[in-house]
Amino acid sequence: MSTKSSEISGNELSSLRQKFSAARKATESLVATLKPEDCVIQTMPDVSPTRWHLAHVTWFFEHFILCNHLPGYRIFNDKFSYLFNSYYYTVGEMHLRPERGFLSRPTVAEVMDYRHHVDRHMETLLAREPDNELAFLVTLGINHEQQHQELILTDIKHVFSHNPLYPALRESVAKPNGRAGEIHFIEHPEGIAEIGYSGTEFVFDNETPRHRTYLQAHAIANRPVTNREFRAFIDDDGYRRAELWLSDGWATVNKEGWSRPLYWTEDLTRYFTLGGMQEIDSEAPVCHVSFYEADAYARWAGARLPTEPEWETLAAKTHTDGNFVESGHLQPVTQLDETKGVRQLFGDVWEWTQSAYGPYPGYRPLAGALGEYNGKFMCNQMVLRGGSCATPHSHIRATYRNFFYPQSRWQFSGIRLAKDC
Amino acid sequence: MSTKSSEISGNELSSLRQKFSAARKATESLVATLKPEDCVIQTMPDVSPTRWHLAHVTWFFEHFILCNHLPGYRIFNDKFSYLFNSYYYTVGEMHLRPERGFLSRPTVAEVMDYRHHVDRHMETLLAREPDNELAFLVTLGINHEQQHQELILTDIKHVFSHNPLYPALRESVAKPNGRAGEIHFIEHPEGIAEIGYSGTEFVFDNETPRHRTYLQAHAIANRPVTNREFRAFIDDDGYRRAELWLSDGWATVNKEGWSRPLYWTEDLTRYFTLGGMQEIDSEAPVCHVSFYEADAYARWAGARLPTEPEWETLAAKTHTDGNFVESGHLQPVTQLDETKGVRQLFGDVWEWTQSAYGPYPGYRPLAGALGEYNGKFMCNQMVLRGGSCATPHSHIRATYRNFFYPQSRWQFSGIRLAKDC
Amino acid sequence: MSTKSSEISGNELSSLRQKFSAARKATESLVATLKPEDCVIQTMPDVSPTRWHLAHVTWFFEHFILCNHLPGYRIFNDKFSYLFNSYYYTVGEMHLRPERGFLSRPTVAEVMDYRHHVDRHMETLLAREPDNELAFLVTLGINHEQQHQELILTDIKHVFSHNPLYPALRESVAKPNGRAGEIHFIEHPEGIAEIGYSGTEFVFDNETPRHRTYLQAHAIANRPVTNREFRAFIDDDGYRRAELWLSDGWATVNKEGWSRPLYWTEDLTRYFTLGGMQEIDSEAPVCHVSFYEADAYARWAGARLPTEPEWETLAAKTHTDGNFVESGHLQPVTQLDETKGVRQLFGDVWEWTQSAYGPYPGYRPLAGALGEYNGKFMCNQMVLRGGSCATPHSHIRATYRNFFYPQSRWQFSGIRLAKDC
Amino acid sequence: MSTKSSEISGNELSSLRQKFSAARKATESLVATLKPEDCVIQTMPDVSPTRWHLAHVTWFFEHFILCNHLPGYRIFNDKFSYLFNSYYYTVGEMHLRPERGFLSRPTVAEVMDYRHHVDRHMETLLAREPDNELAFLVTLGINHEQQHQELILTDIKHVFSHNPLYPALRESVAKPNGRAGEIHFIEHPEGIAEIGYSGTEFVFDNETPRHRTYLQAHAIANRPVTNREFRAFIDDDGYRRAELWLSDGWATVNKEGWSRPLYWTEDLTRYFTLGGMQEIDSEAPVCHVSFYEADAYARWAGARLPTEPEWETLAAKTHTDGNFVESGHLQPVTQLDETKGVRQLFGDVWEWTQSAYGPYPGYRPLAGALGEYNGKFMCNQMVLRGGSCATPHSHIRATYRNFFYPQSRWQFSGIRLAKDC
Repeated sequence: MSTKSSEISGNELSSLRQKFSAARKATESLVATLKPEDCVIQTMPDVSPTRWHLAHVTWFFEHFILCNHLPGYRIFNDKFSYLFNSYYYTVGEMHLRPERGFLSRPTVAEVMDYRHHVDRHMETLLAREPDNELAFLVTLGINHEQQHQELILTDIKHVFSHNPLYPALRESVAKPNGRAGEIHFIEHPEGIAEIGYSGTEFVFDNETPRHRTYLQAHAIANRPVTNREFRAFIDDDGYRRAELWLSDGWATVNKEGWSRPLYWTEDLTRYFTLGGMQEIDSEAPVCHVSFYEADAYARWAGARLPTEPEWETLAAKTHTDGNFVESGHLQPVTQLDETKGVRQLFGDVWEWTQSAYGPYPGYRPLAGALGEYNGKFMCNQMVLRGGSCATPHSHIRATYRNFFYPQSRWQFSGIRLAKDC
Repeated sequence: MSTKSSEISGNELSSLRQKFSAARKATESLVATLKPEDCVIQTMPDVSPTRWHLAHVTWFFEHFILCNHLPGYRIFNDKFSYLFNSYYYTVGEMHLRPERGFLSRPTVAEVMDYRHHVDRHMETLLAREPDNELAFLVTLGINHEQQHQELILTDIKHVFSHNPLYPALRESVAKPNGRAGEIHFIEHPEGIAEIGYSGTEFVFDNETPRHRTYLQAHAIANRPVTNREFRAFIDDDGYRRAELWLSDGWATVNKEGWSRPLYWTEDLTRYFTLGGMQEIDSEAPVCHVSFYEADAYARWAGARLPTEPEWETLAAKTHTDGNFVESGHLQPVTQLDETKGVRQLFGDVWEWTQSAYGPYPGYRPLAGALGEYNGKFMCNQMVLRGGSCATPHSHIRATYRNFFYPQSRWQFSGIRLAKDC
Repeated sequence: MSTKSSEISGNELSSLRQKFSAARKATESLVATLKPEDCVIQTMPDVSPTRWHLAHVTWFFEHFILCNHLPGYRIFNDKFSYLFNSYYYTVGEMHLRPERGFLSRPTVAEVMDYRHHVDRHMETLLAREPDNELAFLVTLGINHEQQHQELILTDIKHVFSHNPLYPALRESVAKPNGRAGEIHFIEHPEGIAEIGYSGTEFVFDNETPRHRTYLQAHAIANRPVTNREFRAFIDDDGYRRAELWLSDGWATVNKEGWSRPLYWTEDLTRYFTLGGMQEIDSEAPVCHVSFYEADAYARWAGARLPTEPEWETLAAKTHTDGNFVESGHLQPVTQLDETKGVRQLFGDVWEWTQSAYGPYPGYRPLAGALGEYNGKFMCNQMVLRGGSCATPHSHIRATYRNFFYPQSRWQFSGIRLAKDC
Repeated sequence: MSTKSSEISGNELSSLRQKFSAARKATESLVATLKPEDCVIQTMPDVSPTRWHLAHVTWFFEHFILCNHLPGYRIFNDKFSYLFNSYYYTVGEMHLRPERGFLSRPTVAEVMDYRHHVDRHMETLLAREPDNELAFLVTLGINHEQQHQELILTDIKHVFSHNPLYPALRESVAKPNGRAGEIHFIEHPEGIAEIGYSGTEFVFDNETPRHRTYLQAHAIANRPVTNREFRAFIDDDGYRRAELWLSDGWATVNKEGWSRPLYWTEDLTRYFTLGGMQEIDSEAPVCHVSFYEADAYARWAGARLPTEPEWETLAAKTHTDGNFVESGHLQPVTQLDETKGVRQLFGDVWEWTQSAYGPYPGYRPLAGALGEYNGKFMCNQMVLRGGSCATPHSHIRATYRNFFYPQSRWQFSGIRLAKDC
């Protein structure tokens, strides 16, 4: 997420306009079938209403770009900075996160007007020749919007799952499509490795600087853990054996009454998807498990979770194709057994690592309010890698670091095993 | 709320059809300007989303009348009894009250379809000759719908007040309209009195049976306490003097940080109304105060709140005209100083009494699930009398008993003083 | 609790000294077998550590009497008013009630020194000729100390019950002693009755003024409900049938997971007593039930709880003998079946009434800080009558009003049924 | 914490007996001045009553050693395993941690009997020739007892600090003793380093295995941050500037209302110590700060906290002398300015690192229930290094890893700065 100094080329500019336009349209396309009522509901503090996402990403462009870079720009509505600032304390006071579901206004239609207002002015701005700093900010805004595209999907899934009518976002999602095959492990020898980003493309500040680290000899599974495999853990009383769990995990299991992944029915035969209730696909990667469950499963399986450097070192050698949001599946699917080498490292499910989210050596956050984007969350959260079936493909890369609290389950989060050699 | 045995006359029947139709239309008229987004928000457990009210009153007719009295009636949607049953445990399990705001579906449009479906079948049923039992149930359903008309208003007021954009339900509400004049007290001598209902009109079960009670000599104020008077209490440090408060009230003041009536701005100059933010009308009755505040104010003023029998004995001699929902004011207003005798006993604000809500001697709840309507709430709540500016006029009478917890403030609740003689 | 103006006689004075001395010694005798460790534990906010009670009652004499009436009296320890003021806001700030269990100091021995210091000065003061005001204050202090004697017992019972070692305060408590016999009802006709106190003996302010009230025709059970009878309610699924419960009671049952009286073991065969774990005496009055349970039981039994005026009218004709703390039983016992008339109206268990605790018509609290003694609790609590096996005999009378929240169970509280006629 | 297979020498055995005896006596010496009342108080879930510590460490010897290794040993009291098991789920159910303060029994005297009973049997066992496994378990038990010696001090400090009488454990603690001098930084170049333990002495399992890691070039401060320096952070509005804090830290500051280190008075001139209230020693290391405060201070100072490998690499070159519990200071003190090189790396205050507590590569917990000792806490906690003024000297070493939640403040925890080079 470093800023660069000189001007950008005509090609880059045209591409930037296209990317901006495409990202904005992609968001609106995701929510096209939602009713106004759907867009204002909040079912837990982690979840934001769809309408809030639609407005927040727009405010991001307005506040960080238009206000500073488009001379004469007039703010659409004075109160929107209060309502739609997420967590940038440097910018000013903001509406309380757990009360985002208390707001019916602005209506969805009013927020769409806000979006179009900002879009028009962004187009005006991009019609001129942006310098590198502006190009960086626009690219950051696009990536930010992509992150919220994923959150729109995971949040509305949570909202719909709490409704006894079980509404569906899409008429159908992915159906079972093959056998996962036996798991096997890919070995890597001891030695120095380099991780983190050092090139000239856009990345987030938390992916830098590239630096050396020391890897022990280890092996990583060729594919994620499946629903069938996780079911064996449940059947072996996995949720009732304290010795399999971290202390905080065990406390959470008991406090929350967990006995299965989020969205599974009590009889363990169906789960709620963005296409409504569906039979569990035994061969597909298990999903909507917390770090605690991933860690307990790994211990039960005689394995462990990979570390960030182990995961990234493998990923650096793997292309990023996979089941992303563009596939329309909106569920993890199975890659066929005959696939050689590592499978599904990218897409399908975010993979929990055993690494706590922290700063890389020499890490420097962006200057100003944008420095609050990533750095201030570097405590109490665990790193996930690889993207999911709800992530835009262009958003992901080998160095990408996602992070959630160890008890979080509402993202498309799954498990890849690792071992010492 | 007693059921009667024989048939009803043609006149009564025609009137019943009219009342049913009028009540249903009145509800829809109240919500005509709301957006779909407005109708699904819940800002505290006491508050229900508008859409929930619209559906719940409809379910009441469907469940208690159509299912049992219209042969061949098919339930509109199996899950609605789970979603829109409020608190009738005898009927079956229900959706959790604090999670009513988690539901976007059914949409408002779907609930309007539900309403019209039930209306059509109710018309079919009422086209026949209902017996007294059915007439009673329909009347009960109409009165029930009227109660929710009031709640729709008080709940949406709470919802809008939590939105920094401060939306208005109506373009304008009542404006200041005169001077309240000096307060004076109307005396009543010691002796036996009768309260409660004994006639043949519809009343709720908690208003019966009519019975004797013993009154001490006392006096009741000719009008409610005004905002000007309550402001003097605030200015005299009323919210900071423990000696003025009941113990539980003082704990509430400190826990909640109360320093003024609900909806007043911190500078004590404006309050939020259903017409948006407005200057405080000093002459109008103070409103949105809890029992604790009413009780503390009375103590500060060297008076006390009236008891139920005292209030009802005065009300029995007073006609029920007043500022009800039909006036369109949606705020308490001032009656002119020249008015003789008792003023505003009905309408404007519900008046807290010092009587805990309990059963009258010999009280019998209705049979079956409808027995849960009133009786099971006879603990921990205080009685309010007289109706408010959000109450339908035809809903109120001298014997009518409303009840809320002593900390509740989101109803149009105010203060009338009383004294020992 | 009215104060009188002139001097008191020599006889009265001598009796006052004796009463003071006896009350102080009775308290110390109650705690004689406790270890220092026992005296500082608090198991819930309602419970105070024994050491706190020992100091608080002493502070009451020091603050309200010695400081104002004994010239030259020096306060024992400046911080004790902060530590041992219970709830007299007018006196000053106080230590938080839920944190009484955070204090190890002053030690029990230091508090005993405090007691003896105050006793010596009280004796000095009482050696002079007190006027009526002082005599009243001393009598109030004695009655206050008696109330805390009962609380010492109920609080240490709660503390010990939470210890898996189940310590006993006494080596043994009452054992089964006979059959309760069939219940029958004593009728009373409709008419005006007088309740409340009007004489010259000491009573609390909440028992005054004596006033007229109107009774409906009713009947009251000759004896309390027994453990055997309450067991039938449990066996009939009483704790699982919503229709038997007040709404708030049902919420409490589910939130707290109640399925039996406090202190009963899960298998319903034993209960914890001040003599340790013991077989349940089926014939003895059921005890440690909340108002909610008393009310639900009465509904199940086709009866109701008595009102305060009904109870007092019966009590006014009954002598106050009974199983009080002086019996040493420390448990409710059975009075033999052959006893004529009403039994156990006094002693054994406090009897829940259906009356919310409120002010009598014309009620005036004492002046100053002592006005906080009773009046400010007149909301959200229910009246209990008659005293218990932990109450000093001399403390009770027909007009005595005790009050607790409807969910409270740690007092010796039981059930007497009533009926409409 | 690895177990070894063959027998131990006579010298080792004699030394083991001495160490056991010394550790047990040291514990009792710490609590010699406490009153019985002091020993049963719990002021927050993190804090355990002294009596609990005294019994728990004894249970540890009884359960893990005597029961398995001393033929014919009879358990002292069946219920003690339930009462005094801390968190070993594999052993069985246990009393709830937040309710340790609900227990008055067993009394302190009874627990001392328990201690002596176990001591006698341990002596019998140690009179024989223990094999290496037993020697390991005894050594583990001794180290375990040492950890609780520190907790006894930090817990009673918390208990006494909550008492408005501010009792002191000792008559006096350390007084100001010199100037800390200017801070300077000790540099270390980039390269591979080895950390963790690989020898034959006793260490905890979480210190193994020794392994390679990669260090970036960095520098570490020669001494801890002082109270004077931390005061400058406060004076610069450090507690009110969101941009200095991690997101979770900022939420904690606001929720808890933090504005200064734990135990400081509001006027920032005094702090509570084990010797009572005392003037703040400006030159001594700041203490009782959380990780959040340490991290915010470092950011404000333009520095950062050291990582575990950085800290250990420096510590490996430093002798472990310092201000430990044996000094009797019970407060951090100042080392004189003229001291060369790194100062106070050991003793005085535990130093927060920026490393989340996790398993070393190849980590294996002990087998059986003792595997719960360290491993299951490897989530959500941060590593602290170096011991404090409450730690026994013999307990500490360069590889020692302590861990607490980032919000914890009741340990003697302080700050040492580091920097990138």
